[in-house]
Amino acid sequence: MYIAPLAALIEHFERLPGIGHKTAVRLSFSVLSATDEEAKSFADAILNAKSSIHYCSICQDLTDGDTCRICQSSKRDKSIICVVEGPKDVLAMEKTGEFNGLYHVLHGVISPMDGIGPEEIKAKELVARLTSDEVKEVIMATNLTVEGEATATYLARLIKPTGVKVTRIARGVPVGGDLEYVDEVTLTMALEGRREI
Amino acid sequence: MYIAPLAALIEHFERLPGIGHKTAVRLSFSVLSATDEEAKSFADAILNAKSSIHYCSICQDLTDGDTCRICQSSKRDKSIICVVEGPKDVLAMEKTGEFNGLYHVLHGVISPMDGIGPEEIKAKELVARLTSDEVKEVIMATNLTVEGEATATYLARLIKPTGVKVTRIARGVPVGGDLEYVDEVTLTMALEGRREI
Repeated sequence: MYIAPLAALIEHFERLPGIGHKTAVRLSFSVLSATDEEAKSFADAILNAKSSIHYCSICQDLTDGDTCRICQSSKRDKSIICVVEGPKDVLAMEKTGEFNGLYHVLHGVISPMDGIGPEEIKAKELVARLTSDEVKEVIMATNLTVEGEATATYLARLIKPTGVKVTRIARGVPVGGDLEYVDEVTLTMALEGRREI
Repeated sequence: MYIAPLAALIEHFERLPGIGHKTAVRLSFSVLSATDEEAKSFADAILNAKSSIHYCSICQDLTDGDTCRICQSSKRDKSIICVVEGPKDVLAMEKTGEFNGLYHVLHGVISPMDGIGPEEIKAKELVARLTSDEVKEVIMATNLTVEGEATATYLARLIKPTGVKVTRIARGVPVGGDLEYVDEVTLTMALEGRREI
């Protein structure tokens, strides 16, 4: 139905997450109606991002240098490491403005159903960072899903022998949330985690 | 907040129609997690589509040859031309399977508010096609919007002196609607109910 070069472009857009056929067609036509410079600049941005971005040699977050800006910063508290599943979680944490330590990006969670074991995530890189005495606490901030919980538990067990304190972010009712619509497990966790006002 | 090559990629995705910041971030991360080959193939698809696709020398539809497949076909009725606003409208018409003539793609509509006059759309290319006696009818299938109606009326007046019959698709297409999103049955009704302007 579409001429070959257009069909190929549509197919590439369709492979992106959450992009259906109609959206892919719309995006492809938009690329066609862009200027030559704009299209070239888009293609270059893809190639450049792909070739220049890699993992920080310390925290495994994305960076275009050897280490990322957070690991390089002298203002960050190097005694505390927050462990997250992916680079987007680092951005979410940074938005709070409440955390001043370092991060460790796992790039996944342990999920036997999907064939992802401890070897497939950046677990040994985390343990390697704990050999110096500098780190006092590791916060497990993986998602509150079955896989996220299992990964947090696995890593906690791995870290325990080093003597470093391991904590888990609080489970509870989200701010602005309605008790009525919160599931029972969350509410139970919120009750268990109650604190004196 | 984002490292430079990632920020550049996000910005390019954000320029696409209907793509907000959050979606642009999601799409950019998806490109980063693709293989090198996949990313390169995506960039190539953009460049290739942009460089190889141009306008058919006859109907102005998109093609990667000199003329498009419809203009080349010996099975199409060359006595009738359906005038549409854009290449996506040709696809919508073809989906009905009810039209066997040729097309003419205007690549826009007359819209004084946006500074688009008759010179900015492929109007004179249309008139040039009517010099031979082959064409007996021109169907105006521009959108049923104010601009689409104005363009149809303008072109009808331009064509009248040549003696070629000019028709307008029936107002079975909901007013204010876009051809691209109309279902095939409605579009078929609109074709069948066409009347002389």
